[in-house]
Amino acid sequence: MATFADISVAAGINILTAFIFLVAFAFLRLQPFNDRVYFPKWYLKGLRTDPDTSGGYGSRFINLDFRTYLRFLNWVPAALKMPEPELIEHAGLDSAVYLRIYLLGLKIFIPIAFLAWAVLVPVNFTNSTLELGKAVYSDIDKLSISNISLGSHRFWTHILIAYAFTFWTCYVLQKEYDNVTALRLQFLASAKRRPDQFTVLVRNVPPDNDESVSELVEHFFLVNHPDHYLTHQVVYDANKLANLVKQRKKLQNWLDYYQNRYARNQTKRPITKTGFLGLWGEKVDAIDYYISEIDKISEEIVEERKRVRNDPKSIMPAAFVSFKTRWGAAVCAQTQQSRNPTIWLTDWASEPRDVYWNNMAIPYVALTIRRLMMAVAFFFLTFFFMIPIAFVQSLASIEGIEKVAPFLKPLVEQKAVKAFIQGFLPGIALKLFLIFLPAILMMMSKFEGFISISSLERRSASRYYLFNFVNVFLGSIIAGTAFEQLDSFIHQSPMQIPITIGIAIPMKATFFISFIMVDGWAGVAGEILRLKPMIIYHLKNSLLVKTEKDREEAMDPGSIGFNTGEPQIQLYFLLGLVYSTVTPLLLPFIIIFFGFAYVVYRHQVINVYNQEYESAAAFWPDVHGRVISALVIAQLLLMGLMTTREFAMSTPFLIILPVLTISFHIYCKGRYEPAFVKYPLQEAMMKDTLERATEPNLNLKAYLLNAYIHPVFKEEEERDDDQVTEKLQQHESVLVPTKRQSRRSTPLPSISKYSPSSSPTR
Amino acid sequence: MATFADISVAAGINILTAFIFLVAFAFLRLQPFNDRVYFPKWYLKGLRTDPDTSGGYGSRFINLDFRTYLRFLNWVPAALKMPEPELIEHAGLDSAVYLRIYLLGLKIFIPIAFLAWAVLVPVNFTNSTLELGKAVYSDIDKLSISNISLGSHRFWTHILIAYAFTFWTCYVLQKEYDNVTALRLQFLASAKRRPDQFTVLVRNVPPDNDESVSELVEHFFLVNHPDHYLTHQVVYDANKLANLVKQRKKLQNWLDYYQNRYARNQTKRPITKTGFLGLWGEKVDAIDYYISEIDKISEEIVEERKRVRNDPKSIMPAAFVSFKTRWGAAVCAQTQQSRNPTIWLTDWASEPRDVYWNNMAIPYVALTIRRLMMAVAFFFLTFFFMIPIAFVQSLASIEGIEKVAPFLKPLVEQKAVKAFIQGFLPGIALKLFLIFLPAILMMMSKFEGFISISSLERRSASRYYLFNFVNVFLGSIIAGTAFEQLDSFIHQSPMQIPITIGIAIPMKATFFISFIMVDGWAGVAGEILRLKPMIIYHLKNSLLVKTEKDREEAMDPGSIGFNTGEPQIQLYFLLGLVYSTVTPLLLPFIIIFFGFAYVVYRHQVINVYNQEYESAAAFWPDVHGRVISALVIAQLLLMGLMTTREFAMSTPFLIILPVLTISFHIYCKGRYEPAFVKYPLQEAMMKDTLERATEPNLNLKAYLLNAYIHPVFKEEEERDDDQVTEKLQQHESVLVPTKRQSRRSTPLPSISKYSPSSSPTR
Repeated sequence: MATFADISVAAGINILTAFIFLVAFAFLRLQPFNDRVYFPKWYLKGLRTDPDTSGGYGSRFINLDFRTYLRFLNWVPAALKMPEPELIEHAGLDSAVYLRIYLLGLKIFIPIAFLAWAVLVPVNFTNSTLELGKAVYSDIDKLSISNISLGSHRFWTHILIAYAFTFWTCYVLQKEYDNVTALRLQFLASAKRRPDQFTVLVRNVPPDNDESVSELVEHFFLVNHPDHYLTHQVVYDANKLANLVKQRKKLQNWLDYYQNRYARNQTKRPITKTGFLGLWGEKVDAIDYYISEIDKISEEIVEERKRVRNDPKSIMPAAFVSFKTRWGAAVCAQTQQSRNPTIWLTDWASEPRDVYWNNMAIPYVALTIRRLMMAVAFFFLTFFFMIPIAFVQSLASIEGIEKVAPFLKPLVEQKAVKAFIQGFLPGIALKLFLIFLPAILMMMSKFEGFISISSLERRSASRYYLFNFVNVFLGSIIAGTAFEQLDSFIHQSPMQIPITIGIAIPMKATFFISFIMVDGWAGVAGEILRLKPMIIYHLKNSLLVKTEKDREEAMDPGSIGFNTGEPQIQLYFLLGLVYSTVTPLLLPFIIIFFGFAYVVYRHQVINVYNQEYESAAAFWPDVHGRVISALVIAQLLLMGLMTTREFAMSTPFLIILPVLTISFHIYCKGRYEPAFVKYPLQEAMMKDTLERATEPNLNLKAYLLNAYIHPVFKEEEERDDDQVTEKLQQHESVLVPTKRQSRRSTPLPSISKYSPSSSPTR
Repeated sequence: MATFADISVAAGINILTAFIFLVAFAFLRLQPFNDRVYFPKWYLKGLRTDPDTSGGYGSRFINLDFRTYLRFLNWVPAALKMPEPELIEHAGLDSAVYLRIYLLGLKIFIPIAFLAWAVLVPVNFTNSTLELGKAVYSDIDKLSISNISLGSHRFWTHILIAYAFTFWTCYVLQKEYDNVTALRLQFLASAKRRPDQFTVLVRNVPPDNDESVSELVEHFFLVNHPDHYLTHQVVYDANKLANLVKQRKKLQNWLDYYQNRYARNQTKRPITKTGFLGLWGEKVDAIDYYISEIDKISEEIVEERKRVRNDPKSIMPAAFVSFKTRWGAAVCAQTQQSRNPTIWLTDWASEPRDVYWNNMAIPYVALTIRRLMMAVAFFFLTFFFMIPIAFVQSLASIEGIEKVAPFLKPLVEQKAVKAFIQGFLPGIALKLFLIFLPAILMMMSKFEGFISISSLERRSASRYYLFNFVNVFLGSIIAGTAFEQLDSFIHQSPMQIPITIGIAIPMKATFFISFIMVDGWAGVAGEILRLKPMIIYHLKNSLLVKTEKDREEAMDPGSIGFNTGEPQIQLYFLLGLVYSTVTPLLLPFIIIFFGFAYVVYRHQVINVYNQEYESAAAFWPDVHGRVISALVIAQLLLMGLMTTREFAMSTPFLIILPVLTISFHIYCKGRYEPAFVKYPLQEAMMKDTLERATEPNLNLKAYLLNAYIHPVFKEEEERDDDQVTEKLQQHESVLVPTKRQSRRSTPLPSISKYSPSSSPTR
């Protein structure tokens, strides 16, 4: 049991770590050569150019203006200054609403913390059970519910407070759902025309012997939506083509690398081997070799492109169907077309960037089977993931290695090697698994057949949350692997489970406090430092970059990463709600996490992250649902805890809370969720009428013609057209015709009043 | 433990009872004076008239043709002869599909029974654990799983057979879902035009200060569905008016009664008292009194009708909106109209007869709260219903009565009275509750705010099934009240529950066999006898009937009663599936029930029941879901049973079954359920196109004008128009303009070749 002193020391260390990260960040970001690492978003928007070369050679790479270092924290107000509407304009609604999750945390926990410290802490502290009773206790437990004697009537305070917390949380959640719904509808109804407003994705077009998919789609919609059908685009199976293009890119990188090397050192033509990774095989001139290889693959690409375009077999039974009006599209997307509900499936087309092209052709029956398989796989992944890891760990032990590879015996018996193997290898196996977990979950979601990147991420996020809940939350409270927990839960009564967990909760408060500091505080500070992207950028910059375009590609702005970020935030919601009534001491740590993370991520969203797609905050129902589930878990655990404190008479009062919370959830689901899955006809009609009035001569067909074309075709066409503008087009949505060409090379007088003001180059 | 002999005796008694019922039925139905009790459906259809008066006075009431008695069972082939398409035409799709539930039972259980008797019974019988082990065993147990020794490898047979049963059940279920879906789509797409194909019910029209509900609705749909909107009908709050009309009807009945009495005995004018039930108050001339009362209330009705029509407050915020095409209606019914998903709620209008008018005006928030309240109420009803009954029972005991009313002491101490109180009263309290249970559940559904009678019945049915499952199935297997079960289940581990039940299952086989015979066989035989409607009809006929119309009203054809009938069938599915692997002896009893019930209900559907509404088999997903849940329960209980037989190693093999079954259910839900909740646009468009081609000059507006008018207005108008045709119109769907007027009084040469051939009057 930790004392206040222990906690303070730990807090001090973590604050110091975070502070060092922040100072390092403040120093690094002011260096001009890191400008593209810390402000990539502005480059991608074309609103920032490389630091100009005026000034000496040194000042081009290192910032020598010492005054700027003194104001090393002024990125914080800068990050907070941009108002939300401009943030939405700048970074998209997804990012803006993602930041609101942190705000939601603050809104929920600040009042809760005040109330808890004003009421619960005194009630707990003035009791003295622990002093009289057990010998071993800590200062922290004096502030927690553990200090109340068994069966004491003081527990009524906790029950009342639990009611207050529940009502407050639900109130804030409802307000926030309301806000986000309004933001989403406003965003969808915004003046900007977007192809997904007019387009519906049709899947499982039934096979027909007489007509091609394209003809079939056209006839079907001409018959069934005669007044609204406009045009359609079939979906090509361009996976092979995309692979070839990717391969050429890799070759191009190698070519660039050797060309750069040769440019620097013209005395010697670089040489490579043709075998695997250039490690063996025939020695050849590297530049010539790669040029010829690229030519070869380019021809292949041309061939394949022709084949895809002309071979009817490469057309998938899916199409993007566009309508004359938003109303027509809304109708088609939200109704069933055919008598057989497994063919002619219609749904809103996602935004063009958001489409996940590989999953377009999965038939209906396969989808059911794939979902079942993944559900089973996820169950085993969650509860039995320790088995393969334990196996790897056993292999990675001294005995394991000696058994598998006896010839290594003399080596591994050496003291240093032995210590390394015993100390690190088993941990590394687990760590590696945890690092790859989000990728594994993402692969599982892809296998399940979702057809937009946003839905893939949402699915992965909910699975990651479940995994964290079982293995981090429950796993930390009840020692033992998830499988052992499962086993004991199956053999315990449903009433016993909250009790088992409830007993352990107060004892684990200090563990979770240090968890919040290490994982939360230091993690967030590490995020702002961007060590990995910085190293990769500088490597690429020195080895591969030849043109401006290459430099742009070398930047890795990253994105918010909903599938990993959100489940972690949710873990803090869970901890905060569970401990709010039990150990209020934990709340300030949670609040600091939310506040700090809010500032850091706001900075990152403004300056760094490049949004990959825009789903218009489609994830909010998930966020809301998970906070609700955390609330219900907290209530059940409190019930279990009370029972162990010989205060079981509280159960009838506490059982009302989850019932109310779940009804509240059902109400919210009915009241707000439709805004996230449906599109009201009134809105569509309003927008259509407005557009007809303001732009009577709009040529919608031309506008929609190439909106939903596989990115590989678009890329190729652009590459053929104009090598320079290629990349640029890709990063931008198709909807906003680029007007940046003129700006790119001339520095702008004033780009945005909220653009990073502390940057030395401005 | 019962022996074969016991079972045989019980079966004999029950078969005899059923046989007596059948003979009584055969006798009673051949009497002309019972013709309207046993063939009301044909009268309502206007296809049968009262037995003609040719022949003597006696033969008008009693059938003296002895030859007809010899063929007393020939209603059975007659009932089976009518082919399904004609049955659908004659009695509606709901009834036809309802009969398919019994067929489904036969299709599932006949092959299962053959397999079980061919494989399981020999495997069980050739073992001899029971003879060696315990002293007390019965012959029946020798055929059941109890005869296999603990941990024997013979259990593998049962596991294999469980797989076979699961696959067979799922196969039949899928086939049947497919058939019913096809029938439903065919029915919906049938040539007949119906108002509900064009009409959408809009609820929660938002209040507006400047416009009336009617104007608001018209404007909204003219704006948002400009090409499709045709007309609309607002919904009046006519509950008070309906009450007044009902009251007048009652008075009219009394008037008829006294007029009849006077007509028979003209010497004395009948006299009544004006007070409650005519028991006290001033003495008046009965006929004059009721005539004046009816005049008074008629005036009130006229007043109220005017008020309802003109007072804007009596208009509910709901309307039936009709569209020019089925396509337009399908679009509107299946999309969200407004940004706020709690206003302008659209859904398919139910068929006019199916509308439940009282619930039209419930706002969205109230719906959530009402559902929560009813969920809680149902929970208490299921698990704690014994508490009030136990209270009533304690009052109804000797001691209770003596305590509450000491002056009754001398009476209740008498031997005969005492025996009656001790023997019957407590049972009567429980029996009364069980009789009223469906009505209570129906009231709960009404309170929840459903707006069609069919959905009310579906909801009540699922609640009744749950109640039966907990209190009949579990309550019989584990002795003790539901509350005690709940208590023990909360305190048991989830793995323990199937074990607890599993142990008890083989022991309860004989109980359930006699349950099937008493409740199933005798119950079905009682249904065909229609004792209660017969008595009521003859009472009414002798006291109230003056005109032909009155006689028509005196008939009580009844209806299938989905809310009580279907849950009982489902109980047999559950018993059959649970015992199929455990005690195959039970299966023949189930099969006899399904076969017998099929014949009886087919007869009733053809000759008796008058369908109240037509929901086009909307209940099938519920039926399917409950059979699936029974299958899963059976699998879990088998797993529990195996564990207690020291054959726990089977668990991994058996756990696969529920996973597969549930996945199958999810697949079916996706594949077939949309046909029951959505309406494909392709179908709508096909129908519209066909109609445009065949009837280009159709005046749809006139057709739809009065389709959705509150029945009380319609009734009143018809009453004013034509007293004679009033009732007739009500009983028929509005869609089929009556052409029967001419037929009513002239006997028809040939009505239907499947009409009851054994009737003596034809």
